Amino acid sequence: MRVDVLTLFPEMFDGVFNASILGKARDKGIVSLQAVNFRQYAGNKHGQVDDTPYGGGGGMVLKPDPIFAAVEALLDKSEQPTLETADEVIQHEGVERNTDIKSPRIILMCPQGETFTQKKAEELAKEDHLIFICGHYEGYDERIREYLVTDELSIGDYVLTGGELPAMTVIDSVTRLLPGVLGNETSAVTDSFSTGLLEYPHYTRPAEFRGWKVPDVLLSGHHVNIDSWRRQEALRRTMERRPDLLEQAELTGKERMWIEEQRKSDCLGDKQ
Amino acid sequence: MRVDVLTLFPEMFDGVFNASILGKARDKGIVSLQAVNFRQYAGNKHGQVDDTPYGGGGGMVLKPDPIFAAVEALLDKSEQPTLETADEVIQHEGVERNTDIKSPRIILMCPQGETFTQKKAEELAKEDHLIFICGHYEGYDERIREYLVTDELSIGDYVLTGGELPAMTVIDSVTRLLPGVLGNETSAVTDSFSTGLLEYPHYTRPAEFRGWKVPDVLLSGHHVNIDSWRRQEALRRTMERRPDLLEQAELTGKERMWIEEQRKSDCLGDKQ
Repeated sequence: MRVDVLTLFPEMFDGVFNASILGKARDKGIVSLQAVNFRQYAGNKHGQVDDTPYGGGGGMVLKPDPIFAAVEALLDKSEQPTLETADEVIQHEGVERNTDIKSPRIILMCPQGETFTQKKAEELAKEDHLIFICGHYEGYDERIREYLVTDELSIGDYVLTGGELPAMTVIDSVTRLLPGVLGNETSAVTDSFSTGLLEYPHYTRPAEFRGWKVPDVLLSGHHVNIDSWRRQEALRRTMERRPDLLEQAELTGKERMWIEEQRKSDCLGDKQ
Repeated sequence: MRVDVLTLFPEMFDGVFNASILGKARDKGIVSLQAVNFRQYAGNKHGQVDDTPYGGGGGMVLKPDPIFAAVEALLDKSEQPTLETADEVIQHEGVERNTDIKSPRIILMCPQGETFTQKKAEELAKEDHLIFICGHYEGYDERIREYLVTDELSIGDYVLTGGELPAMTVIDSVTRLLPGVLGNETSAVTDSFSTGLLEYPHYTRPAEFRGWKVPDVLLSGHHVNIDSWRRQEALRRTMERRPDLLEQAELTGKERMWIEEQRKSDCLGDKQ
């Protein structure tokens, strides 16, 4: 997979792109990661990429021309359709994309975007080429949204100083899904979130730490009991912290009954 | 504000802590940012910080001792209560914290945590000292959750290779709220998300780009019309993309009626 990021702060990406899993995926040639400063496509001698908004008001707005020019330069350099072709293929949001022609996904990171989820990560992991556009406390000229990008993504309901950390976040979650990136030893733990329940509690040595002991069942060696304890703790934690996840989770009839019982006894407890 | 991050990959933080708003906030002395490798607190000559889980299964689990020792070292170096005091003050989750004594917030980044929101950012921005604990594709020994941390946070429902990017995300959103960090010129645009509606479309020069024109109203100079167009577009965008946000947004009676009308005409449109 090829990943290009358009940003005014490419130096923010060095540490993240070179460390740990992303660094190894790069070394193995599974992913190419590149941060490009789109100021070089400003098209004016001052390198100006933003301007005041039409209609007045505070804040600056990123101009359309540097972003369009930067994306087009990336398309020219890749073995992707040229702009003439890409212009036909890249449709407005809401219109089905032509998936026969492998045009890149052009992703705008912004608070107005679709909320990023694990499902979206899995979808993006099937692509050959992702281009991320990161604004930095400015707004985007609306024509970038309307005529250039294929996706708008937000990583959550909080305000950040720019799209750089969100882009890194999406890239991290997509890259770890690419074949060959994670060894078996690491995939098991992290993927348990994908089952729809929160993880059960983990314990490791020492068996007693400052007087706090590991639950007996985990030391018992009785694997049926251990599995059943873990499943119940995962259910309990999900019920306590993220009951919204239970709607989508795959549960047995017995488990649904157990949850109902817990809820009822909680209610009784409140009344007493 | 003092911010310490415990991580096995401190080099991931350099680019982000030095660039842009965070770098400037640091230079102005508004925030101190430090990434500490907790491997130095492993307490064994191999620097081992994780171990296999009790009860079997894949994946590794971060041991309690290095994390406790690293947090205690940070508390000793700061003018915070010593561990003996901190031990009394830092309570389990669910129990009210003693807010008279300024103990640090000790925040575990994990998928099981409370979903981070702008409201949480505003809450954390009032603190003097934040300590972030970042695991990296391992699980955490449960005793870290139970007896050390004050908060568990997740930035969204997707799987990442570690807590580093989530910690950077929280730090960025909290730091930009500290007095003196953002100039007036930048705060206006980004904060509009906090009003509860998505932003209206922005446009800047050129007035016509590749045949795509800026809406006439924005060029009219008629500020009443501009304000009303912007408000309506913000409402329209929020209704189309994030109807869930409308529940919490502050709307006039007229606006609520307008939304109802739009919804009705959408329904009629579907039937025709």
